[in-house]
Amino acid sequence: MAITEQDPGGVVTLARDLIRCPSVTPDDGCGIAALAAVLERIGFSVTLLPFGEGAARTPNLFARIGTGQPHLCFAGHTDVVPVGDADWSHDPFGGEIHGGILFGRGACDMKGGIAAFVAAVRLYLNRHPRPQGSISLLITGDEEGPATNGTVRVLEWIEKQGQIPDFCLVGEPTNPAGMGEVIKIGRRGSLNARITVNGTQGHVAYPHRADNPVHRLLALLGELTAAPLDTGSEWFEPSSLQVTSIDVGNTATNVIPARAVARLNIRFNDLHTGADLSGWIRTVTARHAPGADIHIAISGESFLTEPHEPVEALRAAVRDVTGQVPRLDTGGGTSDARFISRYCPVAEFGLVGTSMHKADEHVSLADLKQLTAIYAGFLEKVMR
Amino acid sequence: MAITEQDPGGVVTLARDLIRCPSVTPDDGCGIAALAAVLERIGFSVTLLPFGEGAARTPNLFARIGTGQPHLCFAGHTDVVPVGDADWSHDPFGGEIHGGILFGRGACDMKGGIAAFVAAVRLYLNRHPRPQGSISLLITGDEEGPATNGTVRVLEWIEKQGQIPDFCLVGEPTNPAGMGEVIKIGRRGSLNARITVNGTQGHVAYPHRADNPVHRLLALLGELTAAPLDTGSEWFEPSSLQVTSIDVGNTATNVIPARAVARLNIRFNDLHTGADLSGWIRTVTARHAPGADIHIAISGESFLTEPHEPVEALRAAVRDVTGQVPRLDTGGGTSDARFISRYCPVAEFGLVGTSMHKADEHVSLADLKQLTAIYAGFLEKVMR
Repeated sequence: MAITEQDPGGVVTLARDLIRCPSVTPDDGCGIAALAAVLERIGFSVTLLPFGEGAARTPNLFARIGTGQPHLCFAGHTDVVPVGDADWSHDPFGGEIHGGILFGRGACDMKGGIAAFVAAVRLYLNRHPRPQGSISLLITGDEEGPATNGTVRVLEWIEKQGQIPDFCLVGEPTNPAGMGEVIKIGRRGSLNARITVNGTQGHVAYPHRADNPVHRLLALLGELTAAPLDTGSEWFEPSSLQVTSIDVGNTATNVIPARAVARLNIRFNDLHTGADLSGWIRTVTARHAPGADIHIAISGESFLTEPHEPVEALRAAVRDVTGQVPRLDTGGGTSDARFISRYCPVAEFGLVGTSMHKADEHVSLADLKQLTAIYAGFLEKVMR
Repeated sequence: MAITEQDPGGVVTLARDLIRCPSVTPDDGCGIAALAAVLERIGFSVTLLPFGEGAARTPNLFARIGTGQPHLCFAGHTDVVPVGDADWSHDPFGGEIHGGILFGRGACDMKGGIAAFVAAVRLYLNRHPRPQGSISLLITGDEEGPATNGTVRVLEWIEKQGQIPDFCLVGEPTNPAGMGEVIKIGRRGSLNARITVNGTQGHVAYPHRADNPVHRLLALLGELTAAPLDTGSEWFEPSSLQVTSIDVGNTATNVIPARAVARLNIRFNDLHTGADLSGWIRTVTARHAPGADIHIAISGESFLTEPHEPVEALRAAVRDVTGQVPRLDTGGGTSDARFISRYCPVAEFGLVGTSMHKADEHVSLADLKQLTAIYAGFLEKVMR
C-alpha cells in the first residue's frame, strides 16, 4: 500500500479534523463543509443539499465519483450529540490522542466511521484509479435530532436525479465490544402510543357514581402486555412492548380521578407493521375504554436486507481483517438505515459503540485502521 | 308541649347562634363555648376538654345531666369546613332565614343537628324534670380535620372517668334527600396504600438490560383489581378497591423508567380487617415486585351496631314523626362514629346532607323541627 502504517489513507488525520469541528446537532455546516473539501480533492462531485428553513435548516451533502454500475453508497452523519453534563478528561472537540486512543465527541459515532470510509476510498483509488463502478457518500447534519430535513430529504433528491445506489453501507457503530462482532442487516420498527382515558371523577366511598379511568387503563394495558407479541423471526428478536409512563397526578386519597394517561413504545420485527399494531392498540383500547383518546406515531417500520452478495462480501472483508465472522443482527435502536431501506438494500457496519453518547467518547487508532482496512477490502470485493 | 310551634325547644335560635360563630376547623373555641353556656343553663355538668398544643389545640366538651342508667350520649362537632371558593347567596356566618330556610356553614353538618338534640333535651326535661337515667353530649371542635385531638382523646378521658355511655347517637346528616330515609348503624373501614416499585432504567430497545417497574406495577394492580373483594355481607355493601393514582412522570418515549408509584384506597366491610387487607396487599406486591416500598394507613376499621333496642327505638321515633321507616345503612364515608364504636354501640341519624360542604349550605326549619321531635321521641322511648 502507498500509505503509511501510522495513518492509512489519512484516516487518523481526517477523524481528528472532523472531531475538531463542534458540529452538535444540527451540524451548523462546519462538519459538512470540511468533508466536502476533502471529497472534492479526491475527485468526487459534491452537491451540498441544505434543507429546511431557519432553526430547522440542515446541511447535507451527496458526493459521487464515477457514474457506472455497481453504485455503492456510504451513508452517515457529521452531527454529534451534545457534550452532556458529565466531566470529560479531554477536550470534547480537541481531537486529542493519548496512548493510542483518539478522544472526542463523534469519535465512534460517527466521524471516525466517515474518516475510515474516505480513507478506504483513497486506498482503493490508489490501486484502481479508474473503477468501472461508482462510489457515493450520503452525509447528513441531522441524524441525532428530528431527522426531518436530513437523510429523508436527500434520498428524495437522489431519486429525482436517478442516482439511487445498488447498495448502501451505513457507518454507525454496530460492534458491542470489539471490532468484527456485528453487521446489522435490518432494524426493528418503532411505534409510540399515548392513550388518554377520560372517566368520571367521584368520591372513593361511592364508586358506583364514578367511572375510574385508572381501572380501564389497567385493564387495557393488562391485555396489551399479557402475552409476548411474538417469539421472534428468522432474523429478528421477539418484538417488545414497553409501557414507559402512566400519569394521573391525583394526590387526594379519597377521590377517583377524571383522567389517566399511559405512554408505550413497541419495537417490532418483520412479523408486524406499524398499521397492524396501531389497529390492535385501538381495538383493545376500545374494548376497555370506549372514547379514549389515542395518539400513535410510527417512527419507523421494521426492515431487513436478506443476506445476499454485498452483505456476504462485507462479512468476508470483516473476517479477512479481524479473523472473526460477524453475526448478522437486527437488534438495537433505530438509525437512518430505516429511511434508506425504502430505496435500496442497506447494511450497517462501523466502530465499537461502547463510548457513544457518553463523556470521553473515544476510538482506538487500531480500530480506526481496522475499519479502514475492512471498508477497503469491501470495496475490492464489490466494485468491478 | 310547653314550647312554641315556631321554635320548639329553641332549636332555631340555637342553630342560628351556633352558625353565627365562624368555627372553621379546628373550632377556635367559640362554638364550643356557646354550646357550653347553653348546656350549663339547662343544668348539665360541663367539662371543657381542650387537647393538643399550639396549632393542633382542639377545644372539646363533655357534658352530662344525671348519673343513672341508662346513659345515653349524643356526639357531634361544632367545627365546619371552610366557606370554599364558590359564591354564596347569603352570609355563610349570618344565620339568615329566607322562606323558611336557614342558611349558613354548618346548617346541616352539623350545628343544626346539635341544636335539635339540645332542643329535644329541653323538651324531654320539661316533661321529666328528674329522669332516672342520664344524658350526655360529646362535642368536638375537630371532626372535619385530622381528628387527632378530638373525639379520640375525649373518649379516652371519658373511659378514665368511668362514664362510658350505654349507647351513643351521632348527629351527622345521614339522610340523602329527605328526613327519615336512613339510619346508619355502621360504616365501612378505609385503608390507603402507596406502592412504590423501583426497577432498573434503560433504553426501550434493550428491555432485557432494564427492569420495567411499570410492568411490575401493572401485574400487581391487575391481581389486586382482578376480582371483587366480596359480594357484601348482611348489613354491608361489597367492599371496594379503587386505584386513585399511578405516577411515573417519564416523558422520554425511548426510556424505560426507574420508578413507578401507585396509590389505592379500599373501603371495606365487616368481612375484612385493615390488618388482613394490608397483609394481602403486601403478599401480592411481593409476588410481582419484591422489594417494593409499601406504605399503608388504616384510617378506620369497619364497625357495625347490630340492630337492637336503642336502634329500634330510634327507628320507631323516626317513623312516628316522618311516617316512613328508615333504612338501616352502612354506606358512605367515615365519621367519628368509627372511634365511638370501640367503646359502645353507636348509630347515626341527623339532617338531610345534600348541601353539606357546598356553597349555600342550608336546612329547612321544617327539617330542624322534625329532627327535634325525632330526638325527643327517641329520648322518651329509651330513657326511664
